[in-house]
Amino acid sequence: MKRILSGIQPSGKLHIGNYFGMMHPMVRHMETAELYVFIVDLHALTSVHDRDRLRQGTLEAAADFLALGLDPERCIFWVQSDVPEVCELSWLLSVLTPMGLLERCHAYKDKVAKNIAASHGLFAYPVLMAADILLYQAEVVPVGKDQKQHVEVARDIAIRFNNTFGETFVIPEPEIDETTAIVPGLDGQKMSKSYDNTIPIFLDEKALRKRVMAIQTDATPVEAPKDPSTCNLYALLKLFAPEDKMREVHDLYINGGAAYGYLKQDLFELINDYFAPARARKKELLDNPDYLRQILAKGAEKARAKATVTLERVRDRMGLKY
Amino acid sequence: MKRILSGIQPSGKLHIGNYFGMMHPMVRHMETAELYVFIVDLHALTSVHDRDRLRQGTLEAAADFLALGLDPERCIFWVQSDVPEVCELSWLLSVLTPMGLLERCHAYKDKVAKNIAASHGLFAYPVLMAADILLYQAEVVPVGKDQKQHVEVARDIAIRFNNTFGETFVIPEPEIDETTAIVPGLDGQKMSKSYDNTIPIFLDEKALRKRVMAIQTDATPVEAPKDPSTCNLYALLKLFAPEDKMREVHDLYINGGAAYGYLKQDLFELINDYFAPARARKKELLDNPDYLRQILAKGAEKARAKATVTLERVRDRMGLKY
Repeated sequence: MKRILSGIQPSGKLHIGNYFGMMHPMVRHMETAELYVFIVDLHALTSVHDRDRLRQGTLEAAADFLALGLDPERCIFWVQSDVPEVCELSWLLSVLTPMGLLERCHAYKDKVAKNIAASHGLFAYPVLMAADILLYQAEVVPVGKDQKQHVEVARDIAIRFNNTFGETFVIPEPEIDETTAIVPGLDGQKMSKSYDNTIPIFLDEKALRKRVMAIQTDATPVEAPKDPSTCNLYALLKLFAPEDKMREVHDLYINGGAAYGYLKQDLFELINDYFAPARARKKELLDNPDYLRQILAKGAEKARAKATVTLERVRDRMGLKY
Repeated sequence: MKRILSGIQPSGKLHIGNYFGMMHPMVRHMETAELYVFIVDLHALTSVHDRDRLRQGTLEAAADFLALGLDPERCIFWVQSDVPEVCELSWLLSVLTPMGLLERCHAYKDKVAKNIAASHGLFAYPVLMAADILLYQAEVVPVGKDQKQHVEVARDIAIRFNNTFGETFVIPEPEIDETTAIVPGLDGQKMSKSYDNTIPIFLDEKALRKRVMAIQTDATPVEAPKDPSTCNLYALLKLFAPEDKMREVHDLYINGGAAYGYLKQDLFELINDYFAPARARKKELLDNPDYLRQILAKGAEKARAKATVTLERVRDRMGLKY
């Protein structure tokens, strides 16, 4: 079984694109791999300097993922800062990380170009991410294209460490899932928080309906035939509707008679039904934060047990055990 | 009582300049302040990538300071990496540290100019040093002129943190001891490892004698009067000889008759006698490394108790306690 590691943002506001892009592969990994999932609160600090927002975001992210099917008995699920060994490893890796390697990272340059404050945390982010990966000896790190370079930084640091102090770290591989369907947003572009075109999963009914009704469609009259392959409403329906329903919809598109308004109502009901149990479960979890904390504490304990094994080896190799 | 914090290098090879420049004020602080002294093994990793050298250096530094009079009952004395909370705080401070603040640090630029590999650890050094200082809420940090800027970085970060998250850190002050006598080296320049002009404290008799005999003096004949104020041999004698002996030597300089060779032999004997007990004590300590480790473990326990109080407050303020 491969060891797979995934970090998730403590931001809440999961949308349908995240669900099909991240949750689906994660649930699959839960069945076939040794899965490590953690809420990246230490990374979030590079942009969030608001105590309550971070606390709430952490609890919500935990509730989101548990509600959507992450099973803490079949993976290790914890909050990053609850295993502070990662900060220690981050410093130890720093001394082997050439400045040039970090200076070449696009993500930092992009963020600074977008006027995000150029803090040392933002710059050092890839070293902490390398520590996240190497501390658990992860073999596979599923990432978006924008994070691929950071996994390469982790590989580079791991190789340097092994060469300098002897074989210590597994060299991780990035996994970019090309098979995942790209979920279109309201405007037909890829669904993404940065385009403000998302359908959040945990909206209440009324807000969800409003959001679905805002899907942009073209001005073709109801009776005219339409091309399903270029229609974002069609693509979204396909994610939720059963096959026989989709055959009907397909016929309406090809032969004429597809009324966008009605189809949006159908889509709203499908999404609403699909996520209703998770919504109820999330509410239950958030109403019982101590239970959430208990699950996360157990996860941190399991993660920490793995982390200390790696860290003790690293400390010994570098000469910190005197 | 002021809280004073000092870091010492795990390099061994203490010399007479260190003794009068650092040990003397430290022993004085032990009596009048709450003194924190730690061996900076995590910082040393920016230049030492040799397991055995670092381990040995750490034990030797501990033995050196204990042998020379540091009393672990009257200060907190530990090895930096034994309190890993400092790495955690370092990350937390990173997110509030502007890149420009680090980019302006001379020490980094100077080291890179001297062809020391530009690692991220070297660059991030002032943030770890800020964490060292702020974790223990140190009020005063005795430093050489070259480290003054780093204490200013720590002040700047502390002020930013307090402004962003509420009063948390004491703002530390650098203390540059202008009263300490500058100890001349063999060649008359300031005694410093980088000039290779030192008289190490813990040399054995034979090596010590050779070193003292290598003190550079001028070619004035024995009978000629000499200026004591410009003679490095005279300045070194003054540090060790009793007053009546110095009066004699002073007369010989003024009136003629000072024979450098004999005076060097005197100096050798004085230094040798002065450090003989410390030398024996150091050997005893190094012969019993488990006892050393026990002292350091007790120190780490005391340091950690202080560190966790600060860190818990910081974690809470930043929103890491969910």
